[in-house]
Amino acid sequence: MRIEVGESVRLIRERRPLIHHIMNFVAIADAASATLAIGASPIMAHAAEELEEIAAAAAAIHINIGTPDPQRMNSMTVLTKLAAKYDKPLLLDPVGAGASRLRRRLSLEILRSGAVRVVKGNAGEMLSLAGREGAVKGVDSEVLEAYEPLANFSREHDVVAVSTGKTDYVAYGDKLVSVSGGSELFRFIVGSGCMMGSVTASFMAVQERFRASVEASAAFKFAGEIAEAMSGSNPASFKVELLNALFNLPKHDLRTLQERIKFL
Amino acid sequence: MRIEVGESVRLIRERRPLIHHIMNFVAIADAASATLAIGASPIMAHAAEELEEIAAAAAAIHINIGTPDPQRMNSMTVLTKLAAKYDKPLLLDPVGAGASRLRRRLSLEILRSGAVRVVKGNAGEMLSLAGREGAVKGVDSEVLEAYEPLANFSREHDVVAVSTGKTDYVAYGDKLVSVSGGSELFRFIVGSGCMMGSVTASFMAVQERFRASVEASAAFKFAGEIAEAMSGSNPASFKVELLNALFNLPKHDLRTLQERIKFL
Amino acid sequence: MRIEVGESVRLIRERRPLIHHIMNFVAIADAASATLAIGASPIMAHAAEELEEIAAAAAAIHINIGTPDPQRMNSMTVLTKLAAKYDKPLLLDPVGAGASRLRRRLSLEILRSGAVRVVKGNAGEMLSLAGREGAVKGVDSEVLEAYEPLANFSREHDVVAVSTGKTDYVAYGDKLVSVSGGSELFRFIVGSGCMMGSVTASFMAVQERFRASVEASAAFKFAGEIAEAMSGSNPASFKVELLNALFNLPKHDLRTLQERIKFL
Repeated sequence: MRIEVGESVRLIRERRPLIHHIMNFVAIADAASATLAIGASPIMAHAAEELEEIAAAAAAIHINIGTPDPQRMNSMTVLTKLAAKYDKPLLLDPVGAGASRLRRRLSLEILRSGAVRVVKGNAGEMLSLAGREGAVKGVDSEVLEAYEPLANFSREHDVVAVSTGKTDYVAYGDKLVSVSGGSELFRFIVGSGCMMGSVTASFMAVQERFRASVEASAAFKFAGEIAEAMSGSNPASFKVELLNALFNLPKHDLRTLQERIKFL
Repeated sequence: MRIEVGESVRLIRERRPLIHHIMNFVAIADAASATLAIGASPIMAHAAEELEEIAAAAAAIHINIGTPDPQRMNSMTVLTKLAAKYDKPLLLDPVGAGASRLRRRLSLEILRSGAVRVVKGNAGEMLSLAGREGAVKGVDSEVLEAYEPLANFSREHDVVAVSTGKTDYVAYGDKLVSVSGGSELFRFIVGSGCMMGSVTASFMAVQERFRASVEASAAFKFAGEIAEAMSGSNPASFKVELLNALFNLPKHDLRTLQERIKFL
Repeated sequence: MRIEVGESVRLIRERRPLIHHIMNFVAIADAASATLAIGASPIMAHAAEELEEIAAAAAAIHINIGTPDPQRMNSMTVLTKLAAKYDKPLLLDPVGAGASRLRRRLSLEILRSGAVRVVKGNAGEMLSLAGREGAVKGVDSEVLEAYEPLANFSREHDVVAVSTGKTDYVAYGDKLVSVSGGSELFRFIVGSGCMMGSVTASFMAVQERFRASVEASAAFKFAGEIAEAMSGSNPASFKVELLNALFNLPKHDLRTLQERIKFL
């Protein structure tokens, strides 16, 4: 599989695709910042009354279930249907799906609509959705112990399934890819997963979903490495430098990102 | 027109005016940070039950319609009436007024109350409210192609109308002023417009509304230039430096800001 | 009283306690960031349906009443009862208790449940709860003019009462301690009090509540000093460095923090 991160970033900056988010309250600013940094145009909107107009204008949709409440949960369900109606690429981030039955049920309900094209979570969240609940605590789980459940999950729901962590795994149908690299500091900043979701949705606006997911993973990990080199062992500086690095991706030779990707 | 940014900043720091915000969830922290950085005291409050007590104590009110929902939309309407009742300077930021009918209608409803003293948006938002909808996408529109609609809008609603972008335009009655300067990086950070709204509301707490709007625009652009010089082509660093620069404005000779202002 | 900040930080990093927050929308990202930086694991959750499951799994609970609304106020009440039911250490941050009757009433209602173990606010908020309302404006009040009300308040409600400002005061029963140090810049960043609340809740997850409160105060002030040395007179840089410093606390000899603590 050939990835062309540079080409996708170029397309994002040329088209400035509108990315419609329903986002948790913790990472809502970070996700918008990451969307802008990669070159797309974020809009955060959850009022039922404006969902259709904005979804119809969007190039991709990102539903992140963190900090759920009844009103926004309802909006997520409506937006899922609108994604199907207008045939928009929809990414689901099941934040904390291992932390409460509510979040797991909500994630599965959105998934069963058939409108979701990519599901991206950390290892714990993805295993929880796949029915293999491990020791999942809070919203930050790092290790994927086995990737067959991820591949099965992808096939069952006909989605690209992305499990993030020290190594990211991207499964789709009978394809399974690992993406290496990144930084330990991702674990110590808030919103890293949500930012990666927004970056992935931005790639989905210009590329086929499997390639978009693999490219976004590689680009995000690469940006993390640059950020770590700039900030040492300082997580808050790392976050600033991560956004800077996403913005400055075109200054690098992105063809080397191919090396991080392995078919399994 | 003589502006005296230094004098206004001095007054803000002396009085620490309380600025009551109903703010979108994306930029709520940024707007509070900018309010503190310029020297005022922010409070974010949208519960219907506490609106009157806080509005009565406030020196200025900032209503930003981003990420609307029914509860907060209702609070915006109530707060608008309270601004009139207690004769408090009210700034309206119609975020995304070009992105949905809901936001346009909400903005116009707040405007028609007669309580709004300043409306500040980007070119697309202002043109959308003025009934000249152009190619407005998302919440970040940069170019004002014609400023007569802005002047007409100001006269129709008896408000100071501020259109932000590469050049800012401030219209009030038959006065129309351009404010030049600033940084390209404003477009690549989240919340720049919302922060400028909070800075303008802080100036409104100590100065007449037209002068306040022009001064806030000049001060904000100047802070952006300092920030850009500190951060190169790095938007997240730029945001940090922008807040630093607002805080450190009194260290500069602000009389030179006069040069950016041109009557049209 | 011997404090052992280094030992507590070590325990936090070893156990990564889950800290369940209901947090205001302004500082929700900052509080999560501070929780991660000190070494604990944050989860922000206010949906009534998931409160019990998450509270039962948490090691400590942090209720911060800022930006209240009816739905989250109800969740705060429910979560308070769950803290009692599952015997979880509960910290209450009465943000803006001096700014509206709603917030004061809400704070006192939560307090009267008997489930609260630590109340932490700035001088104005604590005096307002103690029935000694002074000149409290907005949400940022710095000076505690008298500490008898704090001690009385502690005894009346059987809580550790922490008043933050230039000097912090920690009262519990007949113990009263001052903690000196820190930085002037705390006043010029948004969310410093909320971040300190999250740090205190993280200490409460591994230590007895009085010691936890004193240690958290000393650690937070020390981190502020490091941050100020790194950032000069730049509040936004200070905030970045504050989080960095919390993360890097184990690199310092924390035994010297003992010197900041005085029994009164």
